Order: sequence, then C-alpha cells, then structure tokens
Amino acid sequence: MLVGAGFGGLYAARALKRAPVDLTVIDRRNFHLFQPLLYQVATGALSPGEIASPVRHVLSRQRNTRVWMADARDIDVERRRLCLDGGEASYDTLVLAPGSSSQHYFGHDDWAPMAPGLKTIEDATEIRRRILRAFECAERETNAAERRAWLTFVIVGAGPTGVELAGALGEIANDTLRHDFRSINPRESTILLVEGTDRVLPSFPPDLSAKAERDLSRLGVQVRTRSKVTDLDSAGVAVQTGDAVERIPAKTVLWAAGVGPSGLGKIVADRTGAPLDKSGRLIVGPDLTLPGHPEIFVIGDLANFSHQTGKPLEGLAAVAMAEGRYVARAIQARLRGETPPPFHYFDKGTLATIGRNKAVAAFGRLHLSGPLAWFVWLFVHLMYLVEFDNRLLVLIEWIYDYITRNRGARLITGGQ
Amino acid sequence: MLVGAGFGGLYAARALKRAPVDLTVIDRRNFHLFQPLLYQVATGALSPGEIASPVRHVLSRQRNTRVWMADARDIDVERRRLCLDGGEASYDTLVLAPGSSSQHYFGHDDWAPMAPGLKTIEDATEIRRRILRAFECAERETNAAERRAWLTFVIVGAGPTGVELAGALGEIANDTLRHDFRSINPRESTILLVEGTDRVLPSFPPDLSAKAERDLSRLGVQVRTRSKVTDLDSAGVAVQTGDAVERIPAKTVLWAAGVGPSGLGKIVADRTGAPLDKSGRLIVGPDLTLPGHPEIFVIGDLANFSHQTGKPLEGLAAVAMAEGRYVARAIQARLRGETPPPFHYFDKGTLATIGRNKAVAAFGRLHLSGPLAWFVWLFVHLMYLVEFDNRLLVLIEWIYDYITRNRGARLITGGQ
Repeated sequence: MLVGAGFGGLYAARALKRAPVDLTVIDRRNFHLFQPLLYQVATGALSPGEIASPVRHVLSRQRNTRVWMADARDIDVERRRLCLDGGEASYDTLVLAPGSSSQHYFGHDDWAPMAPGLKTIEDATEIRRRILRAFECAERETNAAERRAWLTFVIVGAGPTGVELAGALGEIANDTLRHDFRSINPRESTILLVEGTDRVLPSFPPDLSAKAERDLSRLGVQVRTRSKVTDLDSAGVAVQTGDAVERIPAKTVLWAAGVGPSGLGKIVADRTGAPLDKSGRLIVGPDLTLPGHPEIFVIGDLANFSHQTGKPLEGLAAVAMAEGRYVARAIQARLRGETPPPFHYFDKGTLATIGRNKAVAAFGRLHLSGPLAWFVWLFVHLMYLVEFDNRLLVLIEWIYDYITRNRGARLITGGQ
Repeated sequence: MLVGAGFGGLYAARALKRAPVDLTVIDRRNFHLFQPLLYQVATGALSPGEIASPVRHVLSRQRNTRVWMADARDIDVERRRLCLDGGEASYDTLVLAPGSSSQHYFGHDDWAPMAPGLKTIEDATEIRRRILRAFECAERETNAAERRAWLTFVIVGAGPTGVELAGALGEIANDTLRHDFRSINPRESTILLVEGTDRVLPSFPPDLSAKAERDLSRLGVQVRTRSKVTDLDSAGVAVQTGDAVERIPAKTVLWAAGVGPSGLGKIVADRTGAPLDKSGRLIVGPDLTLPGHPEIFVIGDLANFSHQTGKPLEGLAAVAMAEGRYVARAIQARLRGETPPPFHYFDKGTLATIGRNKAVAAFGRLHLSGPLAWFVWLFVHLMYLVEFDNRLLVLIEWIYDYITRNRGARLITGGQ
C-alpha cells in the first residue's frame, strides 16, 4: 500500500509494475500534480489540466495496482491497518509519500489568508485571480495611492518558487499586459522579492544567485535580501532590513517562504515512536524505513534522510523520484529474500527559471545561465511531462507561447 | 457604453472598432466565455483556459475601447448613468447584453445545490468534480445499492446542453474510463436523460430529434420523454411519466432544463417602463431599442425580439452575434444622421453534437446527421474560436483527443 501520488509515490508505483505485489495507491486528489510548473498556472501561462494527470489514468494499464481517492488519517501499526475517511485498509508493506502540505508562516498562521502560498491547483488559481484582479482594480481606481498599492506585488521568499513567480510577474507587467489597459501602465508595477538570507536562490551556488538577481532586475523585480516581513495585513507589509523597517502598501502578497510537512508525519511518529526533525519530517534509516518498522518506508518531502552527507536531502522532485525507485527495488529484493543495499542519491543537479530565456542550472561544478540553462530547464521539464502522460500538447503550447509571448489562461475564476 | 462581453456584446464592440466613438465595455468577469463548449469542460475534455479569452486581450488593439471589470447594478435613465459596484459611469448610448444568468428551476430553487446547471466556468468545474467523484466513490463503495446510485447520472432537460452532456457522459463511461477502475465497470453506469416534451432537441426538426435519440441510445443513454422531475434530493430523483412516478436513486443530477434572464432585466424594466415577457426578457422594438429610449439597445438572451416571425428569436450565440453587429451598424448610421433600418435575422441554422462523429444540423430544409454533421459542427465552432483569439491550440488538442479518445482534464478540484 502506498500513500501519496506525488513524484515519489508515482515513481515507486510505476517501478512496481511487473512486481508480484498487490498495490493500492491512495491519494486525496484524483490527479498527480506536476508541481514544478504550478507557478505557470498561477501566472496564467498554463491551465491546471495541462500540469495534472489523473492518477488512475497514469496507472490504468498496471493490472497489479488499484487507485483509491481517499484521505489517510491514522495508522494502526500493530494490526497494520491504515485508517481512511470512511473505512480501513490493511497492508503488509506501507510506503508513505504524502509530500508537504501547508505553507509554513513561521508562527504567523493568521497571515495565510492575506498571503497565499503555492502548493495546490486551488492555490495557483487563487494567486492567478489575485494578480489579475489587482490590475483590473488599478485600472478602475481613481485614487493615486490606492492605485499604487494595487500595482505593488510582494513575494516573500526567494527560493525557486519565489524567483519563478517574481520573474513571471515581471514578464506579465512588462510584456503580456502591455497593450491591455488605458488608465494604468502595467510597466509601472512594483514587484518586490523579499529574502531573509543574503542572496536569491540560497540553495544554488553564489555565482548563479548573482546571475539570477541580475536577470530579475532586468525584468523590473526589486530584490531585497537580508530582509524579513515583520507585519502583514490587507493594506500591505512591513519589511525589516537590518534595523530599518519600511511599511510598503501592497494589495497582493504571495508567500513562497517555505512549506510545512504533511500532518501525517506527526501521527506516524506518535504511533511508531519514530523521531521527527525540527521541520516535522520523519527521520528514516539508511533503507528509508522507520526504526523498528521495516515494513514502513517514508519517501519524499516527509522523509529526512541524512545518511549520505550528514545533511538531510532537499525536498526536490528528483530526490523523491530516486527514493520512489529505490523503494520499489527494495521491496522486490525482499520478495526474493535479499537484503536491499542502503539508499544512495546521485545528485543530478538543480535548475530554476527566471523567465523567457533566463534560467540558472548547477550540475556539480558545471554552472549554466542564460538561454542555454533555460533550454536545459525546458527540456528536463518537458521530458518529465512527456514521460508521465505523453503531454506533447504542453510542448506545442510552450512553443506557441514562446513565439507569441502569450499567456492565454488569464482567467479570474472562483473567489469571494 | 456596453454591458456584457458575451457573444452579442463582444461582436458589437468589435464592429465598432473604427467608429468615432468612445466605448467602455463592462463585464463582471475578465473573460469572454465560449459557452457552446462549456460542456466539454464539464466533461474533462477541455480546460477552462481553452474556452475563455480575456476580454481585455481580445479588445487590446482597439484604441477607442476601454474595458472595466465591474458589475452593473442599476441604471439612472434620466441622468444617463449606470451604477456599478464602487462608482458610476455615464453614457450617451447604452448597449445591454448581460446574457442570461441563473438556472431556472421552475419554482424549485432549493434544488439548485443538488442539481447544478451549466452556465459558468465554476459550474463546469463543479459538474466535472461531481461526475468524476461519483466514479471514485463507486470504486470504494462496498454496498451494491449505494454503488449503483453513484453510477446513476440523471440529466434534466434534453435541449442541446442536456444532449451534449448526456452524450459526453456516455463516452466517458464507455470509453474514457474503460481501463481505469478495478471494482466497478464504468460501462454499467446508468445515464438518464429526462425531457418534458415528446422528443429530445425539441427546437430541431423531428427527424433530427429521432436521429439524436438513436445516437444517444447507442452511447448507452436512456431517454425519457414526456417526463418530468417531481422531486429531487441528495438520494435521487422522482420522475413522473404520465401518471406513473418512479423514484430513481442517483447521486449525480445535472440541470439542463433552462436558464433565467439576467437580473438586470427587471431593474431596467422598472426604470424605463419597458415591458418584460413571461420569461423575464425585455421586449425590444424593431431596432432593438427600448420603447421611448432610443439610446438603450438590448441584445442577446435578455432581448425578446419578435418583429420578424411573431415569435421571439431563440437565445442562441448566432442571434446575439447578429444583434451585436446590427447595433454597431445602427450606432454608426445615427452618427451619420441616418435612421437605421430595422433588425433582420438571417437564420444560419442550428447545430448540436451528441459525441464523437455524432451530431445533427439543420440549415433551413437541409438536415444533416452523423459524421458529416459532426464535422460541420467542429468546423463552425473552431472557426469562432480561431476568429476570437487565434486558438489554433484548441484545434490541435481536438485533433489529438479525437485520435487518442483522450479526456486529459479529468481533475477533481475545488470542493464542497
């Protein structure tokens, strides 16, 4: 039994295709979400359907696998049963890959409604709604200060998601909406990227951070490093840099400063006695199982695996996929009566995109930036999409959007 | 000033492109919705972004036009001012094209939450959610009667929307989901189409109704004509045929039995003294203006124009577009000091699709059905899409889906 059809879970399930197992894949949602492209939905370039694939469909030809749309709520480790909404299910081996769930507001959970994070399809359409509505309201606003607040966008956190959102917003303001308004000039928007550390993309090598920062400023994004948001309400944010605190009126604040772990982690820790790290992740053994529970594997964002470098592996899709494939191999080794070797992650590199023709990539000591990095980024992401669901159409849409600088999915839906 | 960026409003606005006017287009939404394809979103074949175009974008190169996202709430005909949410706006000439808004439940408005209609993007994603969730729940359900209720879909009303929904549901059950489930066989679904008159597509010639009914039954749809829904709750529906009333357990009921007019109609009638018809539409003169108010044009679903045949024109996209173009010509004629000739609608025919290769079309005395009608339907709809927003991608997606029998946008999003 496998909980979570994200990158880790789905790769584990697919790698078990020919294994003599009876596999049930459980997910709260009926689709696998290609999260690295979620910011493209939030900024109107892609539609939700283009970055999500029904789990059932992806696994439909895999006869040893059934898919349940269900919420895993608790676990009975003695009886090896998982409690779901409306029922129980028993397992011999359990793979937990629930991912991370809620945003992490550093003790300010009341900020959540004012500063949505980007984790789900619903988050993405909500952010899209707020961005587009801000321009609409600015167009109708007659008070100059209010208009300025509508045209001020603050993004908190300059990791890959924050950088991608800021870059896309820069393109929207400078390019996409150029001819669309009569009372305002979208190019006069203020896009502020607030980061606590001393540089954007802190997990990347410093030279690439510098390149990304230069690319961002070319798109009109103002980067404030060594800064933090100390207050946040519907009128704007207070940003502290050193000892100075600046109050910035802004109607649109987006949160990209970190995600929390799935709530399932705490429950599993309680039931198994497994240790949690500071971030709420389950600390796993060299074979990704919980101590004393070789039948429970934990992979992806919920797992803290530090046996390789002493530091936990990052919450990246590539890590989760490698862990998923490892677990599938380990399960098959056990079925043959063998002991699986410990997990080892081979770092394939990291990528982040800033905008059209602008990206940074680190492959060990090889650092790329500019159009070449962007094409690598495009190629890697498209390959995953095509591998999953034969999404050639997204490729075509991308080429089309690239040529026409189009963002066709600019819809304000849902909402108040 | 123009209210409503549906087919009528947008065609009027575009036809005024080179006119010496100062045009403001007001719509509550930021996008024009291609409503004839809304059922494709509701059934997971297309994404919302593919059938909606930002109004601003469509009109961005039209320098005499500004677009406001605003809700028209009242009208002051003396001072020629329109009351919007947050402000007023004055007009010399007003074109009202707000369309129809809410579903018409024939006095049973309490049925609305149990039987959503198909009018907005949000309706479409809600219907999609319900259809897909029904199959998901059936897969997990152990009680046979409950499982049957999850696999029973009732569509109320067999006009074009009801027929299109029923046909698409037939394809989903028989084709799309064929390999996706383990506990249920989607082909065992019951799809019931309930119609009050004696045939499906009552606005079409009888021979085409018969063809459509045959196509529907080939897709596994059970058609009940001369029947009406007398009760509806979360457990199912009561369907009366003659004197017999049958109680049918069903978890998914969709409403396609009619739409009501925009609420703006009643307000305008109150303020201008213009007569409303039984359905709540404003009765317009031969030039589509309100009696005594030559400065107010009403077009599209809100207008009752009966000067041509004695019967009001139907609420079709083609009618609204012709009215929009007429109004643009009439306004320009007046600016030249001429009196515009009365409006005349040239009926280009009607089309409805049932499914892949299945459609019916009536062009005067020429009646088409089968693959030829389907290709005509496809061609006509694609031409509109391409004309509006150069949506070649939808064409490509369609061809792709046609070849692969795919419905890629099968996402359960949003929620209770």
